[in-house]
Amino acid sequence: MDIITLTTDFGFSEGYVGAMKGRILEILKKHNKDAKIIDISHEVRQFNIYHGAYVLLTSIPYFPPSVHIAVIDPTVGSERNSIVVETKNGHYLVGPDNGLFTYVVERLGIKRIIKIDESKYNPSSTFHGRDIYAVVGAEILINNDYEGEKLKSIVTLDNEKKRVIHIDRFGNIITNIKSSEIKFKYYEDVLIKIKTKNGDKIIKCKFVKSYFEGGDNFICLINSEGFLEISKFMDNASKLLGVDYLDEVEIINIL
Amino acid sequence: MDIITLTTDFGFSEGYVGAMKGRILEILKKHNKDAKIIDISHEVRQFNIYHGAYVLLTSIPYFPPSVHIAVIDPTVGSERNSIVVETKNGHYLVGPDNGLFTYVVERLGIKRIIKIDESKYNPSSTFHGRDIYAVVGAEILINNDYEGEKLKSIVTLDNEKKRVIHIDRFGNIITNIKSSEIKFKYYEDVLIKIKTKNGDKIIKCKFVKSYFEGGDNFICLINSEGFLEISKFMDNASKLLGVDYLDEVEIINIL
Amino acid sequence: MDIITLTTDFGFSEGYVGAMKGRILEILKKHNKDAKIIDISHEVRQFNIYHGAYVLLTSIPYFPPSVHIAVIDPTVGSERNSIVVETKNGHYLVGPDNGLFTYVVERLGIKRIIKIDESKYNPSSTFHGRDIYAVVGAEILINNDYEGEKLKSIVTLDNEKKRVIHIDRFGNIITNIKSSEIKFKYYEDVLIKIKTKNGDKIIKCKFVKSYFEGGDNFICLINSEGFLEISKFMDNASKLLGVDYLDEVEIINIL
Repeated sequence: MDIITLTTDFGFSEGYVGAMKGRILEILKKHNKDAKIIDISHEVRQFNIYHGAYVLLTSIPYFPPSVHIAVIDPTVGSERNSIVVETKNGHYLVGPDNGLFTYVVERLGIKRIIKIDESKYNPSSTFHGRDIYAVVGAEILINNDYEGEKLKSIVTLDNEKKRVIHIDRFGNIITNIKSSEIKFKYYEDVLIKIKTKNGDKIIKCKFVKSYFEGGDNFICLINSEGFLEISKFMDNASKLLGVDYLDEVEIINIL
Repeated sequence: MDIITLTTDFGFSEGYVGAMKGRILEILKKHNKDAKIIDISHEVRQFNIYHGAYVLLTSIPYFPPSVHIAVIDPTVGSERNSIVVETKNGHYLVGPDNGLFTYVVERLGIKRIIKIDESKYNPSSTFHGRDIYAVVGAEILINNDYEGEKLKSIVTLDNEKKRVIHIDRFGNIITNIKSSEIKFKYYEDVLIKIKTKNGDKIIKCKFVKSYFEGGDNFICLINSEGFLEISKFMDNASKLLGVDYLDEVEIINIL
Repeated sequence: MDIITLTTDFGFSEGYVGAMKGRILEILKKHNKDAKIIDISHEVRQFNIYHGAYVLLTSIPYFPPSVHIAVIDPTVGSERNSIVVETKNGHYLVGPDNGLFTYVVERLGIKRIIKIDESKYNPSSTFHGRDIYAVVGAEILINNDYEGEKLKSIVTLDNEKKRVIHIDRFGNIITNIKSSEIKFKYYEDVLIKIKTKNGDKIIKCKFVKSYFEGGDNFICLINSEGFLEISKFMDNASKLLGVDYLDEVEIINIL
């Protein structure tokens, strides 16, 4: 039971995802190899590498060792590299070297990084997902390995500053503040400052365990990935507060 | 060929669905077991248990005996139970006990209900889909069974009053009036009253067999599930009429 | 490893896709047959046969010989035929005979066309995807063939006039002008006229290889399918220009 997953910003309204699946299946068939193709997400916000990086972090670690293709690739056709990253626990990550794998390799550790020789695949200049990454993913499934020029490091997103790293479809605001950095206790009230485009917002939130505990108030909680998340039950916290990706976040007080 | 299906309101823009698939595959792999993971829907309207219940009704009965995980769970982390329902024809339904399975068990019949002992799974307080339901689903595939405390009944949605139980993406208004309750004949005109938030709407519709037969007029028809549906060809009946979930419906006259 | 793909305008918010998958799996199980069910797209714009035809063109040719079910079917229940088309390279296409297969058979060639005898399947009048096409698709997988009345031709979309045949989710405007018809060279500026509902638009675009090369200007490029596409990097060209499906396109000058 081999597994290959797909994460893209292509949406499910186009033929792009189908073309990638077709390529993978065509190569597998030629080599008489079977594998499961698993959709992780195709609705990553267009060109949003942060969003993609968070989706990968919140899904890949739960898989058994697998091949994961990720294509959020605003500068396809430019000089950015294409890479295969093998993690310490045996996952293969395939995609553009643009920061997309920052969070997941932070968690899983890097065993090796291989630069994909794009010219080998004779790609179109606009669709490397189909012409390179799908083919590379299938080749890894067939060979249980991938060979090529080794790189020493990958491009990474700045993950030092405390800030908003994701806004989910429910409008929940996810920060890169981890549970280990938190000093307040359950059911205490906390003041959190977020620097938005329209000025600083100071939010009073109760620190709770579950979404429904906040009633009409803003809440914060440690989400299922261990990050501090600001939320409002059955409402859209991000829209209410005008908060966006990469806004800086600061815990200013425990009340 | 074992089958496990997923129905959620998580959307395809997040890592949530991927995390559930990863957990399932990781457990299956550990037990050297193969199964198909099938997406039913991940775009159930957020927190809308009625919508979820209708999606399950309109899909599960067409499957061969399978495991079906459903997660529309606004009060995750509260005291609501988590359950496994075995239907009379051998389906296993896994999810929160909040009414989600009302319509599908009405149709398929209940063989037994088992309360999931959540503490066994050491879940996060916000993501039982990944931490409990995915694991329980995989366990059922492996053991062909699920053991635990038996319950006598499940939470059910009120399905007695005649009303709107679903509005589909095309704006078609689906009621819980069944074909057996209908006295009018094809191509008769019917007056239907719907109590909306903005007052009663009296709709004159022709009773037809296919959507295209109405031209510019409202139509009603027995949909592919046997329910009375109010619709307008190539238009959005629900928006035109201001009709919402749970609005009461009454057939007031056959013209 | 047999493959059956699904392309619909049903969306992922309904039970429709699940019902089709259930029917397929139920029939396969009965015949002790295994196959992969692959989602190509379920977000084709509602009733938009042009959109569906383009999605099929951009995905099906990359698959190994497979069964492909496509349901964009505004006039379900009318007199339009249902068909199975076998392509020269061994794909089976299953769906309504309404033009949906125009582009893909133009590329792959037709071996034979079989009219589906709908009455054999006792379908509901509103959901042939589940009641006919899913069943026919499964039957093809089981029998490696499909028998029935032969037709001489299928309904086709007009593909002679040069025009907009698709607008993708990024707002890129895809025309049916092929790379072989283009006389300009890379990095030349081109004037393109599009007849929109709000009058003619004359667009100056640089002819580039990759999206990112245009900066703030409109660009045109040969997309990964070999069609001329008008685009703006990180912006929505179709919205900016007010361009819609089927608007006529003319290259008026090379600057």
